Amino acid sequence: MATIDPHARWGEHGRPDYAGLQSFCACPYTEAADDLAGADVAVVGAPIDELATDYPGTRFGPRAIRLASDSFAGAHLDAGVNPFEALRVIDYGDAPVMPVDPIASHAAIERTVGEVVDAGAIPLVLGGDHSIAEPDIRACAKRHGPLGLIHFDAHTDTGRHLWGVAVNHGTPMYRLIEQGHVVADRYVQIGLRGSWPGEEEFAWQRERGIRDFRMGEVLERGIADVLDDGIDAVGPGPVFASIDIDVLDPAFAPGTGTPEPGGMTSTDLLWATRELARRLELVGADLVEVIPTASGSRPDITALIGSRIATELLTGIALRRA
Amino acid sequence: MATIDPHARWGEHGRPDYAGLQSFCACPYTEAADDLAGADVAVVGAPIDELATDYPGTRFGPRAIRLASDSFAGAHLDAGVNPFEALRVIDYGDAPVMPVDPIASHAAIERTVGEVVDAGAIPLVLGGDHSIAEPDIRACAKRHGPLGLIHFDAHTDTGRHLWGVAVNHGTPMYRLIEQGHVVADRYVQIGLRGSWPGEEEFAWQRERGIRDFRMGEVLERGIADVLDDGIDAVGPGPVFASIDIDVLDPAFAPGTGTPEPGGMTSTDLLWATRELARRLELVGADLVEVIPTASGSRPDITALIGSRIATELLTGIALRRA
Amino acid sequence: MATIDPHARWGEHGRPDYAGLQSFCACPYTEAADDLAGADVAVVGAPIDELATDYPGTRFGPRAIRLASDSFAGAHLDAGVNPFEALRVIDYGDAPVMPVDPIASHAAIERTVGEVVDAGAIPLVLGGDHSIAEPDIRACAKRHGPLGLIHFDAHTDTGRHLWGVAVNHGTPMYRLIEQGHVVADRYVQIGLRGSWPGEEEFAWQRERGIRDFRMGEVLERGIADVLDDGIDAVGPGPVFASIDIDVLDPAFAPGTGTPEPGGMTSTDLLWATRELARRLELVGADLVEVIPTASGSRPDITALIGSRIATELLTGIALRRA
Amino acid sequence: MATIDPHARWGEHGRPDYAGLQSFCACPYTEAADDLAGADVAVVGAPIDELATDYPGTRFGPRAIRLASDSFAGAHLDAGVNPFEALRVIDYGDAPVMPVDPIASHAAIERTVGEVVDAGAIPLVLGGDHSIAEPDIRACAKRHGPLGLIHFDAHTDTGRHLWGVAVNHGTPMYRLIEQGHVVADRYVQIGLRGSWPGEEEFAWQRERGIRDFRMGEVLERGIADVLDDGIDAVGPGPVFASIDIDVLDPAFAPGTGTPEPGGMTSTDLLWATRELARRLELVGADLVEVIPTASGSRPDITALIGSRIATELLTGIALRRA
Amino acid sequence: MATIDPHARWGEHGRPDYAGLQSFCACPYTEAADDLAGADVAVVGAPIDELATDYPGTRFGPRAIRLASDSFAGAHLDAGVNPFEALRVIDYGDAPVMPVDPIASHAAIERTVGEVVDAGAIPLVLGGDHSIAEPDIRACAKRHGPLGLIHFDAHTDTGRHLWGVAVNHGTPMYRLIEQGHVVADRYVQIGLRGSWPGEEEFAWQRERGIRDFRMGEVLERGIADVLDDGIDAVGPGPVFASIDIDVLDPAFAPGTGTPEPGGMTSTDLLWATRELARRLELVGADLVEVIPTASGSRPDITALIGSRIATELLTGIALRRA
Amino acid sequence: MATIDPHARWGEHGRPDYAGLQSFCACPYTEAADDLAGADVAVVGAPIDELATDYPGTRFGPRAIRLASDSFAGAHLDAGVNPFEALRVIDYGDAPVMPVDPIASHAAIERTVGEVVDAGAIPLVLGGDHSIAEPDIRACAKRHGPLGLIHFDAHTDTGRHLWGVAVNHGTPMYRLIEQGHVVADRYVQIGLRGSWPGEEEFAWQRERGIRDFRMGEVLERGIADVLDDGIDAVGPGPVFASIDIDVLDPAFAPGTGTPEPGGMTSTDLLWATRELARRLELVGADLVEVIPTASGSRPDITALIGSRIATELLTGIALRRA
Repeated sequence: MATIDPHARWGEHGRPDYAGLQSFCACPYTEAADDLAGADVAVVGAPIDELATDYPGTRFGPRAIRLASDSFAGAHLDAGVNPFEALRVIDYGDAPVMPVDPIASHAAIERTVGEVVDAGAIPLVLGGDHSIAEPDIRACAKRHGPLGLIHFDAHTDTGRHLWGVAVNHGTPMYRLIEQGHVVADRYVQIGLRGSWPGEEEFAWQRERGIRDFRMGEVLERGIADVLDDGIDAVGPGPVFASIDIDVLDPAFAPGTGTPEPGGMTSTDLLWATRELARRLELVGADLVEVIPTASGSRPDITALIGSRIATELLTGIALRRA
Repeated sequence: MATIDPHARWGEHGRPDYAGLQSFCACPYTEAADDLAGADVAVVGAPIDELATDYPGTRFGPRAIRLASDSFAGAHLDAGVNPFEALRVIDYGDAPVMPVDPIASHAAIERTVGEVVDAGAIPLVLGGDHSIAEPDIRACAKRHGPLGLIHFDAHTDTGRHLWGVAVNHGTPMYRLIEQGHVVADRYVQIGLRGSWPGEEEFAWQRERGIRDFRMGEVLERGIADVLDDGIDAVGPGPVFASIDIDVLDPAFAPGTGTPEPGGMTSTDLLWATRELARRLELVGADLVEVIPTASGSRPDITALIGSRIATELLTGIALRRA
Repeated sequence: MATIDPHARWGEHGRPDYAGLQSFCACPYTEAADDLAGADVAVVGAPIDELATDYPGTRFGPRAIRLASDSFAGAHLDAGVNPFEALRVIDYGDAPVMPVDPIASHAAIERTVGEVVDAGAIPLVLGGDHSIAEPDIRACAKRHGPLGLIHFDAHTDTGRHLWGVAVNHGTPMYRLIEQGHVVADRYVQIGLRGSWPGEEEFAWQRERGIRDFRMGEVLERGIADVLDDGIDAVGPGPVFASIDIDVLDPAFAPGTGTPEPGGMTSTDLLWATRELARRLELVGADLVEVIPTASGSRPDITALIGSRIATELLTGIALRRA
Repeated sequence: MATIDPHARWGEHGRPDYAGLQSFCACPYTEAADDLAGADVAVVGAPIDELATDYPGTRFGPRAIRLASDSFAGAHLDAGVNPFEALRVIDYGDAPVMPVDPIASHAAIERTVGEVVDAGAIPLVLGGDHSIAEPDIRACAKRHGPLGLIHFDAHTDTGRHLWGVAVNHGTPMYRLIEQGHVVADRYVQIGLRGSWPGEEEFAWQRERGIRDFRMGEVLERGIADVLDDGIDAVGPGPVFASIDIDVLDPAFAPGTGTPEPGGMTSTDLLWATRELARRLELVGADLVEVIPTASGSRPDITALIGSRIATELLTGIALRRA
Repeated sequence: MATIDPHARWGEHGRPDYAGLQSFCACPYTEAADDLAGADVAVVGAPIDELATDYPGTRFGPRAIRLASDSFAGAHLDAGVNPFEALRVIDYGDAPVMPVDPIASHAAIERTVGEVVDAGAIPLVLGGDHSIAEPDIRACAKRHGPLGLIHFDAHTDTGRHLWGVAVNHGTPMYRLIEQGHVVADRYVQIGLRGSWPGEEEFAWQRERGIRDFRMGEVLERGIADVLDDGIDAVGPGPVFASIDIDVLDPAFAPGTGTPEPGGMTSTDLLWATRELARRLELVGADLVEVIPTASGSRPDITALIGSRIATELLTGIALRRA
Repeated sequence: MATIDPHARWGEHGRPDYAGLQSFCACPYTEAADDLAGADVAVVGAPIDELATDYPGTRFGPRAIRLASDSFAGAHLDAGVNPFEALRVIDYGDAPVMPVDPIASHAAIERTVGEVVDAGAIPLVLGGDHSIAEPDIRACAKRHGPLGLIHFDAHTDTGRHLWGVAVNHGTPMYRLIEQGHVVADRYVQIGLRGSWPGEEEFAWQRERGIRDFRMGEVLERGIADVLDDGIDAVGPGPVFASIDIDVLDPAFAPGTGTPEPGGMTSTDLLWATRELARRLELVGADLVEVIPTASGSRPDITALIGSRIATELLTGIALRRA
């Protein structure tokens, strides 16, 4: 299977990060479902942005995250484990999304993520706007049953609709709850701030028992304390982690569509990501809303931290299995 | 009606370009159809990009073109006429497009442009991706009857569909011909290059009698000669002009979604735009595919030339009426 | 009065942030003093930079802050109040500044801000370089009497002159004290760092009883503790808040003229801004030194946090009134 | 005198362009008037922008042009002469301009340029906004008598005032004519376009006998033909050349404050610059309106062509003397 | 062999340009020499810049050109042939260059290009700085015998050494002549300008019978006329084409290390590239000095025209074979 | 000696930061070793990047840091001392590095730094990639004997080789230990994170007694506590401080070649830098890996904090001597 071995041509030293074609962290790349056999985790891209209501550009996210990923990742210096040795990680390419047809793209994402789950692997989905959470979580829930959800974001994404449209990047969590794919009282939101959504959505959240931690609370109590509570709330059982890069302060992730000042630091988010993956029974994860054309810097610091969040997820999974 | 008079607060000198709210060339701004009475031309924005199959961002086009426009435009130095004195030009705001709902947005564009035509004014539509040509030309054709069309573009935009979708930024001209809103043998394309579309589309074009001038011919014969032929082919009767900024070489307009090297120069396009407006019976025009977030420079040179193309259209119309 | 209602054309959903003309947070916009009647707060732009001694570009600040502001601001997620419901906020446009004539511009700023105060509203002034503090604070002090001043900045701005010039962005606070518009022992500076000004200026400050909190102290004690002391020092009575965006570390606000590393975080400043507005008797505020052309990122993270600081001021005022 | 010899430390190979301090084309640098003795040409920077009415940033122009200049310039490949061998060229540093005090800066520019003329050298002044033409041409005219003027620009810069201010970047040529420093019928403008100024200014120009060549004419007749006419009109006698970088199309010089599409190409301007210096009796020249922070590209293509225009001036002078 | 079929997952519509891994123009990709059998042309990347004496970054060139290339290239609109149908084009990946070891990288480039030639295919090499011309031309000459060379560039690249180093991006052509791999009187340079190299190098060129066309001549005579002469001078027999992107004016290719204003237009270069490939017996070609991190615009217009020059080469080859 | 006195031409006010040639903090500039007599500290640039294995561009570092430095630095607001009064600081220019010849460049760096040490001054070296630590530390150690080393970095830089090459930016510390110039048990690393190097290198470090503090520990214990331990470990005796800008989080220093999210804040690093210089017997220091072309913002925030780190080193030295 799989191609683009970084050692095929370069030998022991391996391909430099700037040369040739680059899969996520130089993992084996395949677009054939058969090659998923034996994989622990498969990275899948979901390059769409037609359902973003403001600044578009997340369609370039998966490619940028791959290019920013580290081809030479060894053991995590703080965690002491090398997820690429501990786990069999495959880059399963991008779901065959269709430009200007987000409904078809959602179907493709659900189908491709489903192939990963069917193969017994954990899908790690790189967005794409946050609307992809609906098909990717659904793909997991259809196989694992209703899921717990730990969700890092500046926004709840539990709108009923935006501009009259029900499926978009502001509504996936509402829909997943209503569809029964996410268990409301095992759903935790961390990092909320700004002024959206309004009372109606929060009232619905309270009724359902959804737990939210706003930035004011994160700052006051510290991330470790909040994460403890969040992990308790999610509890045992299958869990999906959905991380919107805009949970970070724009200083750390300027390249996103709805940046909101006053967010998390990179050190807190990287640690929390690894911890949740270590302490929860993760059956899937996504990382969304990276817009590489918007950062300004080169290398693009938003795609870069996107790639590192993905690596922390893998590290946490590896720690859990160790 | 109308608001934001640049002299209300600043007096005789007028508001500097960088201060306050800015309508197109400091023209009177209104969102009320009644205020269109007596207008010769009304500028309308169509800020969508959900139907772009590649690089998104044209939703920011109308605003950027307004901000790049010249609040102090006097007489055109080469043409000797001041279109803002010769014509009553209104900024009619943006059509009420709906994020993530391009079909609703198309309806809004058709409706808003229709209001302009109904008021007896020429709509000058600022895109947006090129899909907006379908509703804006249709709005004109429904009132003026089937139209001639002069179309500057690197691409024909006569695809039947892209990725299985019929309505998008690569198909409007095919659809307008098939719907009968554009008269095929009064339809001229100038500036084609690259390698799209293929034989199937060109065969269809030939059958219909559509005339195309590719860049090779423009370079060999010169723009003046080609434009003469083009204007002859369009002939008398109502005409729409549709200008895709990517007809320019990327050096002159880097901020666009499908830039294709080897295009027209700014001097040629500015001249040709004024000429066609002077020599043809224009009932409407659009300028599309400006992506201000992509240029790199500040001031953004793509939005800037976009604003100047709009001004040349107005200048040509003023010359014709003089 | 007032125009550009985001619902006039878009109906219930409202205008998307990227479409049409945009006032601050989609508030009613007017340039007529009569329309100020009944307003609680009026936003005024002061787009000048001719008095900046280093990197120019703050003339583009007010427009960029408007464009970065949130048209859909609801209740503040941490504070639980929606300032745009609790208060009547008007966007009063930009003061009629005169390019290359900063003295005339200062007079225009003082006059325009004075109109707001005369109408019984709190002016919230968007700079512009910090020299605007002289006219905008003077306009308030002439009506409310000598003011307390809480000032967030990397620099004291209490120079006597720079390059022999008395009125510029490094001297407003010295002049306001000497003119008697600011009460020295009710004047507090927070966030000072770097190496300006020198002993002469600090000696003058000490003599007058001005209280300064340098970044070393902010870091050691924490912002909450320092702010408590600062608020005590300002005490009861009318107060002006002047916030120079460069009090933030350049990571959070790269787009400014004299960035100084080692500054405040966005989370600290946003919180402190809301708190001071809640706990002090604010009669006016300004936010200065945003240079949107310098940030690099798009959306521009400096203009963005500028807009959010303005919103925190409004939120604090709303909390105080509640 | 003079310092920063590129061979002092690097020996025969010379200092690479990116290392150390860089004078214009690695010419000897001095700030002492005595060192001007024997110089044929002295480069002087005039880093101001306080008199620009729109986009500021030309204060960074002289430094950027120095950094973009070629430390290894040999013989001009088309002209066959090495101006740095044929002429003794000195970098005389920047005039001691005073931030926020443009009147003082103008005096400093006039004084510094005067020192160059007094030493018998030709000043080559790097702006700065175009207001610097007033002091730098006056410094020449006071010593050489009233001058001919050849002026490349998108704009005439013969306004009487802008926003009520008489001295700014839109008025120098009016003032120099009225002051008698420039001879009206030996004054030629090339490259005008856009829509400024208006009839009043052009009427004044016609009365005085000022000759203008607009872009339409340049395009129709070709630069060689137009330049012949322009050189005839200027005629024999002392001449100043003033080149505003915005005479170029924004594709070639995006980094400027009032870019106007439809301008000259770099090949035409470079050739014309060399030719005019070869065929006219140049006593001074300036190159203005480069804003290096605005180009977007790195290396900055606007500063780069600015440096090459300066080199063409030197090459033409060298050819004339050969 | 070959992988990453754009239709494997996407079916008839093919993979959008922004999704998944992208080979040059979506051609079959392989790193195995066996897969070269039957190929007409093989694209090879040579991502190095350690031998650039000024602005580095060409190591990112091959990747950027691949990403900018057109996955849906059909028939060339002016030439009427689809090179990807007429020829069997393979993307052979990047030569296994070694960071910080340019000598090893040169050996790798020569070896990899040699594999292409050995397989009977024409190598189309994407740089990389211009030093790669030495190994890639040598690889061709070792198999085809001494070659004619047509070379588009602002510079001759016939230095003996720079800063005492013999192998770098300013010397390859001198070395290839001296090594006997290029036939001096079949070597033509087009587009020279600026002021490098000096008399010594040109004297050597004249002695050898190398023909150079400087920009002054190109502008005066037109590209068609100059190219006729150049093609005559190269004459029949095996030829290599080496195109340095800096032959273009910086307006068209800002992203390069030694940009020199006054260069060719994109229309001229694209046409000339196709023509030379059609009229000469090409055995190899390279395109060098693209620095994608320097352009400023996104999409990057320099990488874009780089990709189109490569396509024109293919188109010309296809025309010749037709 | 020394030139470019900021008061020579500007008088009492001094030269504005944007005008003329700028040495580090406007210190006296010289390239003559004799002028070093009496200096306490000499700043030396080492502009190379040929030994960077990933993103190049540090060759532009020293110039950018000079341009970002503060010409008007007074007393440090937190520390209360003005290092430029307390110490005699000279800008000794850049070492005569040779493009494309890093071995020659290393020799030049070692020689130039040696001249500083021989003159009894402390060298403060501005990189350049981290490979420069080998020659600059060796130059100090040859005169002071084996040194303690305090090293802030995301990476250990103790590789044996990268891609088979022994001398590059990933290996200097290994080589310095093995050469005996750094005392292993007086060597402390702070800020390590990511996943490089691997077990082999860390095993070697442990064997030698090298002490490393990873970011996890820095975050948990706080920088003050960690620095106490680090300073204890280094102990009395001559020490070199080597600061790689990538020890900072990319939010604070985006312009570097191997940015790694999750790093230090600017406030922590600035404080720690000053403290270590105050508490240790510093005989030299370097600051490396600033790539000014990569930041995106203007002013460039990475060069800016680079300049401030250098000033903190000077401040700490001044405090120690006070």
